[in-house]
Amino acid sequence: MKKMWEGRFSEASSELLERFNASIMFDRELYEDDIAGSIAHASMLGDAGIITKDEASAIKSGLEQILAEINEGKFEWKIADEDIHMSVEKRLSEIVGKEIGGKLHTARSRNDQVALDFRRFVMRKNREISVQILNLIKTLLEISNSHTDALMPGYTHLQHAQPVSLAFHLLAYIYMFKRDYERFVSSFERGNFSPLGSAALAGTPHRINRHATASALGFYAPMENAMDGVSDRDFALEILFNISLFFMHASRLCEELILWSSSEFGFIAISDAYSTGSSIMPQKKNPDVAELIRGKTGRAYGNLMGLLTVMKGLALAYNKDMQEDKEGVFDSVKAILESVAILNEMLKTAKFNKKNMLSATERGHLSATDLADFLVREKGVAFREAHFITGKCVAAAERAGKDLSQMSAEELRGIDERITPDALAFLGLKASMDARKSFGGASSSSVLAQIASVQKWLGEKSSSI
Amino acid sequence: MKKMWEGRFSEASSELLERFNASIMFDRELYEDDIAGSIAHASMLGDAGIITKDEASAIKSGLEQILAEINEGKFEWKIADEDIHMSVEKRLSEIVGKEIGGKLHTARSRNDQVALDFRRFVMRKNREISVQILNLIKTLLEISNSHTDALMPGYTHLQHAQPVSLAFHLLAYIYMFKRDYERFVSSFERGNFSPLGSAALAGTPHRINRHATASALGFYAPMENAMDGVSDRDFALEILFNISLFFMHASRLCEELILWSSSEFGFIAISDAYSTGSSIMPQKKNPDVAELIRGKTGRAYGNLMGLLTVMKGLALAYNKDMQEDKEGVFDSVKAILESVAILNEMLKTAKFNKKNMLSATERGHLSATDLADFLVREKGVAFREAHFITGKCVAAAERAGKDLSQMSAEELRGIDERITPDALAFLGLKASMDARKSFGGASSSSVLAQIASVQKWLGEKSSSI
Amino acid sequence: MKKMWEGRFSEASSELLERFNASIMFDRELYEDDIAGSIAHASMLGDAGIITKDEASAIKSGLEQILAEINEGKFEWKIADEDIHMSVEKRLSEIVGKEIGGKLHTARSRNDQVALDFRRFVMRKNREISVQILNLIKTLLEISNSHTDALMPGYTHLQHAQPVSLAFHLLAYIYMFKRDYERFVSSFERGNFSPLGSAALAGTPHRINRHATASALGFYAPMENAMDGVSDRDFALEILFNISLFFMHASRLCEELILWSSSEFGFIAISDAYSTGSSIMPQKKNPDVAELIRGKTGRAYGNLMGLLTVMKGLALAYNKDMQEDKEGVFDSVKAILESVAILNEMLKTAKFNKKNMLSATERGHLSATDLADFLVREKGVAFREAHFITGKCVAAAERAGKDLSQMSAEELRGIDERITPDALAFLGLKASMDARKSFGGASSSSVLAQIASVQKWLGEKSSSI
Amino acid sequence: MKKMWEGRFSEASSELLERFNASIMFDRELYEDDIAGSIAHASMLGDAGIITKDEASAIKSGLEQILAEINEGKFEWKIADEDIHMSVEKRLSEIVGKEIGGKLHTARSRNDQVALDFRRFVMRKNREISVQILNLIKTLLEISNSHTDALMPGYTHLQHAQPVSLAFHLLAYIYMFKRDYERFVSSFERGNFSPLGSAALAGTPHRINRHATASALGFYAPMENAMDGVSDRDFALEILFNISLFFMHASRLCEELILWSSSEFGFIAISDAYSTGSSIMPQKKNPDVAELIRGKTGRAYGNLMGLLTVMKGLALAYNKDMQEDKEGVFDSVKAILESVAILNEMLKTAKFNKKNMLSATERGHLSATDLADFLVREKGVAFREAHFITGKCVAAAERAGKDLSQMSAEELRGIDERITPDALAFLGLKASMDARKSFGGASSSSVLAQIASVQKWLGEKSSSI
Repeated sequence: MKKMWEGRFSEASSELLERFNASIMFDRELYEDDIAGSIAHASMLGDAGIITKDEASAIKSGLEQILAEINEGKFEWKIADEDIHMSVEKRLSEIVGKEIGGKLHTARSRNDQVALDFRRFVMRKNREISVQILNLIKTLLEISNSHTDALMPGYTHLQHAQPVSLAFHLLAYIYMFKRDYERFVSSFERGNFSPLGSAALAGTPHRINRHATASALGFYAPMENAMDGVSDRDFALEILFNISLFFMHASRLCEELILWSSSEFGFIAISDAYSTGSSIMPQKKNPDVAELIRGKTGRAYGNLMGLLTVMKGLALAYNKDMQEDKEGVFDSVKAILESVAILNEMLKTAKFNKKNMLSATERGHLSATDLADFLVREKGVAFREAHFITGKCVAAAERAGKDLSQMSAEELRGIDERITPDALAFLGLKASMDARKSFGGASSSSVLAQIASVQKWLGEKSSSI
Repeated sequence: MKKMWEGRFSEASSELLERFNASIMFDRELYEDDIAGSIAHASMLGDAGIITKDEASAIKSGLEQILAEINEGKFEWKIADEDIHMSVEKRLSEIVGKEIGGKLHTARSRNDQVALDFRRFVMRKNREISVQILNLIKTLLEISNSHTDALMPGYTHLQHAQPVSLAFHLLAYIYMFKRDYERFVSSFERGNFSPLGSAALAGTPHRINRHATASALGFYAPMENAMDGVSDRDFALEILFNISLFFMHASRLCEELILWSSSEFGFIAISDAYSTGSSIMPQKKNPDVAELIRGKTGRAYGNLMGLLTVMKGLALAYNKDMQEDKEGVFDSVKAILESVAILNEMLKTAKFNKKNMLSATERGHLSATDLADFLVREKGVAFREAHFITGKCVAAAERAGKDLSQMSAEELRGIDERITPDALAFLGLKASMDARKSFGGASSSSVLAQIASVQKWLGEKSSSI
Repeated sequence: MKKMWEGRFSEASSELLERFNASIMFDRELYEDDIAGSIAHASMLGDAGIITKDEASAIKSGLEQILAEINEGKFEWKIADEDIHMSVEKRLSEIVGKEIGGKLHTARSRNDQVALDFRRFVMRKNREISVQILNLIKTLLEISNSHTDALMPGYTHLQHAQPVSLAFHLLAYIYMFKRDYERFVSSFERGNFSPLGSAALAGTPHRINRHATASALGFYAPMENAMDGVSDRDFALEILFNISLFFMHASRLCEELILWSSSEFGFIAISDAYSTGSSIMPQKKNPDVAELIRGKTGRAYGNLMGLLTVMKGLALAYNKDMQEDKEGVFDSVKAILESVAILNEMLKTAKFNKKNMLSATERGHLSATDLADFLVREKGVAFREAHFITGKCVAAAERAGKDLSQMSAEELRGIDERITPDALAFLGLKASMDARKSFGGASSSSVLAQIASVQKWLGEKSSSI
Repeated sequence: MKKMWEGRFSEASSELLERFNASIMFDRELYEDDIAGSIAHASMLGDAGIITKDEASAIKSGLEQILAEINEGKFEWKIADEDIHMSVEKRLSEIVGKEIGGKLHTARSRNDQVALDFRRFVMRKNREISVQILNLIKTLLEISNSHTDALMPGYTHLQHAQPVSLAFHLLAYIYMFKRDYERFVSSFERGNFSPLGSAALAGTPHRINRHATASALGFYAPMENAMDGVSDRDFALEILFNISLFFMHASRLCEELILWSSSEFGFIAISDAYSTGSSIMPQKKNPDVAELIRGKTGRAYGNLMGLLTVMKGLALAYNKDMQEDKEGVFDSVKAILESVAILNEMLKTAKFNKKNMLSATERGHLSATDLADFLVREKGVAFREAHFITGKCVAAAERAGKDLSQMSAEELRGIDERITPDALAFLGLKASMDARKSFGGASSSSVLAQIASVQKWLGEKSSSI
């Protein structure tokens, strides 16, 4: 095929180059955005009198036909067409004739065209992801709501620390995902500006109306400097980072789901619909979905690192290196959309084993801090000393093969006489949890306040989408 | 030294562990935040009646004395003190006595204390960096303002593409740094919430006032879930990412400064004050500063990758892995603060060589697009055909050893008769640039509009700091 | 379809899971290795009497038929078949019947099967890449051989430093790629051991012969610990790192090819067959291939970082996270194979412009070091003082608008009287270069020795493949 | 202070630059290598007659005095001295006088000097790390040796899979660390060549003897191309990658140590000497060391990514970006040396709880595969069918609230009549493990063979150091 830019070239492109250079195998993902961009551009060219209204109208119809062909799987993709832009334009010329088809690219360059397509794709996906994250938060909130009384050990260093509820624990993830949501929104607001009309790098002498195309395509406004318009990829890096942070959070949750599914913990039974078996060990039921999501964190980090590397040290304006910007973003976007959806379903169908969680709570002296606090508040002992005394009580309990909560008043008093019998009331697990009434704390009342706060926020967000 | 938590331990800590475990060598960077946090905590404890007002007041005086000792270099740092929190608290007990000193840690844990210190540090540095970036933008704007007429080649693929001005080119960087600024501000707004009072992971039974400490320390409000409070490090990852994006942008600018300093380009002379020589080649004058900044991109990316890796798959709530969160942030923050400052000075003192820039513009057929546009607009040729014809003209010019702008009317007409003599008027370099009047384009008028827009924004931001 | 492991499951797999969990879309890349592995396994089972010789033979024929079907594009891939292993086995059962087909998986698990397939793939590709790198070295050596007298500036800090030849400069890359070759070979030697027979994680009670299958499949020997056999991915990380280093080197070479193609340098003309044009600027001829290769560095680094992240902190033995190990490796392998091939062709067809290189050499006082060396060797001046004197000469030359080599004996003497007229002989560019006869130096004689050394090495390697 | 290269400069270096540019704060880590390099260089200069023997001798004495001063902490480091090379040389001139001191830098540049120092440091540390890894392997081997009969569950997907011994499980790590060792050795062999004498980038006209200095400094030979000599940093990237792989392995081991320390697993008690307590929860005993090592994986990955980024796209030969090569390497080297040492001690002093490991083995139907294998081998059932039948038995066992091994002959026969009473003999846990006699398997006999193999290898390596 004759390349658009082949005029001054004396040798034919090597076939090796054709394959190496082509992006059509992956950038066809952008077809919807490319066609929308071309329709907006053609309409504007018609309105501005740069082409005739009839030409604009013919181009629009042709492009709509191409969109339908692609959606129906009738469009033929060829390596020789190099990229999505050339593929669409070539087909357009077949439909409307070369003379009219050739006018579409007036006042435009592939540099701003690809910047537009890619940016519009990223903004669309940003919205999709945001909505999905809200759904995930809803599910977590429902589970929390029905598990405010489900006691489990709160861990630090994977050691039992203090008694909490499953609701309180899951709320920590809700707040992570809430920040994720806000990060996507913030990136959208910073990035939703149109590069169309930047042309090659310096704008164009044609009397184009960039505000019109920006608005038609859902952008707030056109970008203010054309060279920045074609060379900026911050929006792509932002979505890659936001997805990486989401996966970081999800990997923490999935690590816990995997631990909780183990025979040692036994806190959760993932539904058979979201588990898999072994080809050799018939008894296995594996938390594959949680593992896969945890594993996809690697892909997300790698794609981020990849594009950061590509962009390092690139002179302005457009360089072909930047063709490497898309595959990683497509890959990360696909990974997060699939992962949020399946994580959501898996959580909905999982069964929490309250009995096992409770019995785990009864190991590990979880009310030790309460004993220390008793000494501080009731007996006026300085915290550091109270901490030291409690340490000795725990050591004594371990020697006796008991949990601290099972020690008798006598035994405790033997260690320090300020531990009067009224201390025992503070050592119950539910009492211990409910004592933590500080703002954001683990007590039932604090947890209900957290749930209410998220619900309110969720209501506002959901109504604004 | 006896560790605070040594009560139940039967063996002495190994010395190897002491060194491995200690963070005092680097986390003392947080001393100001740690002391501010403790003062706010103590005041609140006093106001809430958890300790007496006199105790709170004694603690406050003691802490202020410690702050002074550190600022004056009189404070002795010891590995055995493990971390900044223990160092300060131990010294406090020396000053105010163990009984009072021991009460400071009431209703607090090292988990929320370190989260507070680190978060406050990051927020402070976020502000410092933001201000510095505004300064850099101001400098670039001043240079742009005085170089709106300095023609230079606009490049794509490092090939001459179209004529632009230095102002237009630098404005692309201004818009990058503007987004950087906005990104820092957005992270500040998302992260400026206080974890203090989260205690170990579940809050505390003491009647603390988290809103009071949050407000005293400059935070918007307390974080809403204590487990999230001690396990969240999004704020640290955000600053690492924001710094990485800044360095990505700076590496592009520095790459260009290095190119422009080369004997081949000769567009810029960096001041002797920001260059260095060679230990063996006496004639060398090296753009070391630009190279170092470009190189520091590696450090920024690496620190981001490092913390992302640390956080992957960590079960809640606090794990000791998270002690690895600080050094990378300290390092990236130092790198950006130094780099913005020196980049700013280097730009202020650099001399642009307009003559060399202009003469470069005269090579490379920079007005070829204008010829194509002429054919489209004046002769009604479809863009694709016009592009093809111009390609032939460029090839002919190269064969004749001329720039396209030096071709005669006759020669051009020989290639295609639609190239009438009036085409020559479009081939001048300044005319070519000034023709690009589209919004965001390279024409002088568009550039002046861009400068005005940034100046307005800058005025608003500067007054709001 | 009924899953192999579905026996104990009460609910059907969700469709969402099916898609999320399946790897067949990408791991079919391993079909050749999977089938070879199964043939070796079946033969061994037959030889060991675990299945009958007839069964082994039927399985072998069936697998060979499947291989032919895939090679001829007749094989139907389905998501429901989950992965390459299940796809092949299911088709085998169709061909040879369920009873015989069902025996192939005896004494094997998907855990060792996938480890085998992937490892064999990586080892095969390692060899392919190694051969390609030798070809690239040959091309660079041929260019060097015919450019030992082509003077160009040697750069440090992108500033002219000392005169060198193109041959000397390219030899630096030859030595980089030579190390790359050796790194691939070293990884092959460390990784070419067979995991087959590790079964799920603990080996098998069947009397299998792992040495036989290892040998039949081209491995040195079986891996010595079955749990390591299924959980090790070092071989994949090594190839990702080796590819990253190759791209780091290639990105440096491509950066230079891009610089050298610029109008400012003008050292090289890349063949039209490996350049592309612009959709808007008809005069452009862009070094796209070099830019793409430089850009692919991002992908290589990202894939490395991705798998490092996946593997971090995974408990033994196999976890589903590890399904994320393949796509990045496939992607990096494809990128390097294509890039080496096209880089090789591009270099072969490029034209170096000796005239421009020479005239660049005449700028920048490249013989300044020689003047300093003259003072040291002929006049007994200490190096530091000689360096200082030469610096003053350079400054004087710049004031006079000359290159140092154009200064008169008189002018130089005026700066320091120890610069006697015989110094001038040392200031010629070719003389300056040829004076650097130290081992590994830039003189023609040293360069010829380097070429000879690489040629000898190349002869040994080429004959050993 | 007057800079060595200040001759041609008209303005004083800015103070900001001085600080930004200086590397003395971190590169003084190289002092030993710098002085060794200078001694070797001076001796060679004396032997080659480039300086007099007396001068060489004076320089050597001066340098030895400086070495002593630094070792004794008497050396004064100043930012103004820029880097380790200048610091040492300046002090040398104070000791031996400027005239003699000034001759040391003859036929050398900072470019090859820093390449030498850094490379020698990396090779030295490579050896130290290798020895430490052998020590770690020894410890793991000793533990394995005394735990060949300690049954524990073998896991996949963190689910119980098949019974193994602790010895078998730890051997998987031994083989990982063995590959790490071999990787360090291989990098040493590829990298241990001397850049000294490359000078600035092109060698030198002085008649130096590079083989003599290479040999005196412990290198195999000089590097063969001077430009490669000053611009190669592969050796640094290799050690960063090798350290990253080590930490990847260590993070897996530490993840397991943390799991095993949890109250839910209870497989291990880490010595008090390698645990720490909580500032608020007196009962806690945290596996901080394992967490810190796992966390340091981030630092290792980050430093690797950092230097890969720095080197991307750098034109030859030396660029100041490369000054950013050292800190990451110093940091990773320190991290691995400390981590291997403390991991070694922690393992030595840990107590494994065989009782808990055994009782865990009794949960999860670990002999299910054995039932399937019984059906295949004794009853001629095809594996896929046997797998399916066993799946039904497991489901039945779960319904009955039993482990598969506790099912009666009757119950099993009710599911499939081919499960004859002799099947029960295969369902014992020790029998199940010991049945896996395949090469590399989990049986006691296979494990003893693995231990013997590693011991043999270790004997060879240890004697060769």
